[in-house]
Amino acid sequence: MTGGDPLSDDIVSRVRGSFARQGLMALLGATLSQVRRGEVTITLPFRQELSQQHGYFHAGATSAIADSAGGYAAFTLFPENSSVLTVEFKMNLTAPARGDRLEAIGRVVSSGRTLTVCRLDVFGCVGSERTLVAIGQQTVMCMHGRPDQHPGTTRRSDETGSGD
Amino acid sequence: MTGGDPLSDDIVSRVRGSFARQGLMALLGATLSQVRRGEVTITLPFRQELSQQHGYFHAGATSAIADSAGGYAAFTLFPENSSVLTVEFKMNLTAPARGDRLEAIGRVVSSGRTLTVCRLDVFGCVGSERTLVAIGQQTVMCMHGRPDQHPGTTRRSDETGSGD
Amino acid sequence: MTGGDPLSDDIVSRVRGSFARQGLMALLGATLSQVRRGEVTITLPFRQELSQQHGYFHAGATSAIADSAGGYAAFTLFPENSSVLTVEFKMNLTAPARGDRLEAIGRVVSSGRTLTVCRLDVFGCVGSERTLVAIGQQTVMCMHGRPDQHPGTTRRSDETGSGD
Amino acid sequence: MTGGDPLSDDIVSRVRGSFARQGLMALLGATLSQVRRGEVTITLPFRQELSQQHGYFHAGATSAIADSAGGYAAFTLFPENSSVLTVEFKMNLTAPARGDRLEAIGRVVSSGRTLTVCRLDVFGCVGSERTLVAIGQQTVMCMHGRPDQHPGTTRRSDETGSGD
Repeated sequence: MTGGDPLSDDIVSRVRGSFARQGLMALLGATLSQVRRGEVTITLPFRQELSQQHGYFHAGATSAIADSAGGYAAFTLFPENSSVLTVEFKMNLTAPARGDRLEAIGRVVSSGRTLTVCRLDVFGCVGSERTLVAIGQQTVMCMHGRPDQHPGTTRRSDETGSGD
Repeated sequence: MTGGDPLSDDIVSRVRGSFARQGLMALLGATLSQVRRGEVTITLPFRQELSQQHGYFHAGATSAIADSAGGYAAFTLFPENSSVLTVEFKMNLTAPARGDRLEAIGRVVSSGRTLTVCRLDVFGCVGSERTLVAIGQQTVMCMHGRPDQHPGTTRRSDETGSGD
Repeated sequence: MTGGDPLSDDIVSRVRGSFARQGLMALLGATLSQVRRGEVTITLPFRQELSQQHGYFHAGATSAIADSAGGYAAFTLFPENSSVLTVEFKMNLTAPARGDRLEAIGRVVSSGRTLTVCRLDVFGCVGSERTLVAIGQQTVMCMHGRPDQHPGTTRRSDETGSGD
Repeated sequence: MTGGDPLSDDIVSRVRGSFARQGLMALLGATLSQVRRGEVTITLPFRQELSQQHGYFHAGATSAIADSAGGYAAFTLFPENSSVLTVEFKMNLTAPARGDRLEAIGRVVSSGRTLTVCRLDVFGCVGSERTLVAIGQQTVMCMHGRPDQHPGTTRRSDETGSGD
């Protein structure tokens, strides 16, 4: 369905602009490390402020970057003048989320006019070694005719779905 | 299975101590607003740093407090000398996550020796008005014989599961 | 959002007609035991043909009736000339699914123009005693302008989502 | 974590024996088409009795074979004298489940002493053409010391988890 192909500068810049408006990504310290067609990678360096009670990355941090990676992977396939909204997602935490950084990869598996389904992988990385620490599935919605430009943009109150 | 009954001071203090060791909760600005038997509420005041690209709470922030609320709801039922680990969770985002604060409630639905299942509800609150913005389900694991005291505690490498 | 209120005969009859067209419900032996506004109950008597390898109800049987219960709970809120499609669902199996019958209850939690979110509960019943054996969450889609009448009706190939 | 390698006859025969005890697989008409190390495929030919209201495979049928495929993929990695129990699973239905048969593939992603996590793929097949119709994630539990031989075997009442 997707191939991780390179994208037009225009789309990359729409993705980067939207990512830059996500206050949470900046608060966590996450960066957009790769943007390809239907595939986005987000990197999150470790620091104590991201931990759960045992000193590993908190599942909330793991999930936040996985959710954004999937949302933006879908967004690369959306038409202009649209925005992306997470409908639902699910994470299995397969190993302690430790390492000097996390890498979350979102990949589009299936893409319709309204709904897009992604698979999510999160790795705990130490240098060049990667361990799979979480896998996920996600549904996102394309909001046609609502460009992703203005923080605070209203949305139809009759729609279910929120998040990134 | 649960009742939201008040708890012994000892258990409340174990929960509060563990919550205080979660760097991410402090970074987000979340507080433990209620601890009852099998039911925990976490509150997260809004600020721009928690937003997604449209200015609402990011699904990652919503999920982080929901995950911790469920994990600590389960933890209230665990024996001494144990700790809690999230195995998996799933969120449906049912409305834009907006308001002056979020309230996440985790409730134990089913509790076994090893695994506990919780339902999660997150509300967007404006003053005394609450709107359901997300619902979730979660599985957490009780790690017997590993008290939740020392950040950095090792865990069996053969176990699946991580997170809060 | 829902109340389990009684419904017009017209809607009840649309639900019953659609249920009767689900070959799988007949194969399993499931019946529609209650249809209320935003809340539907399906009952499945035990027989060996529904078992997993230990003799309990197979998770696939549990899930099938939970999925249909949620789908039809949503369908009670849909306009005429529409049909229902499952987008995704998730089940936690909280106890061995045993008893002389299962009862699956689907309840609408949140309802938008396109997407509806349900919570699902499945009970293992022996006489009048009920044990919670599974909980679920589900997203279904309203297919506007496509009445749920003709098996084999085509659907837009660009839409994600299938199932009940 | 797994490679789909061939297995010893002994393990294949344990898997086939357990599958044969699942009444539901026989009722649906499903067969175990491939058993490899950490990877199992189940095939389900179409018939009207497996349909939802539009004439496609019901999501419950899709999920039942996906759940069994993942459960048995995990089972190939378990020690003797153990059995497998589904803890939870989640399915995204990505396209109408149609075709002359479904093929469900379960693959182990992460395997611990107690819990194993699988990814699930279901294809709708017409001749040699395959379309992805559903993806899933699943957690199963290894029940040590309880051989999967006797239908009706009791299990500890304090454990969460049921299903295949």
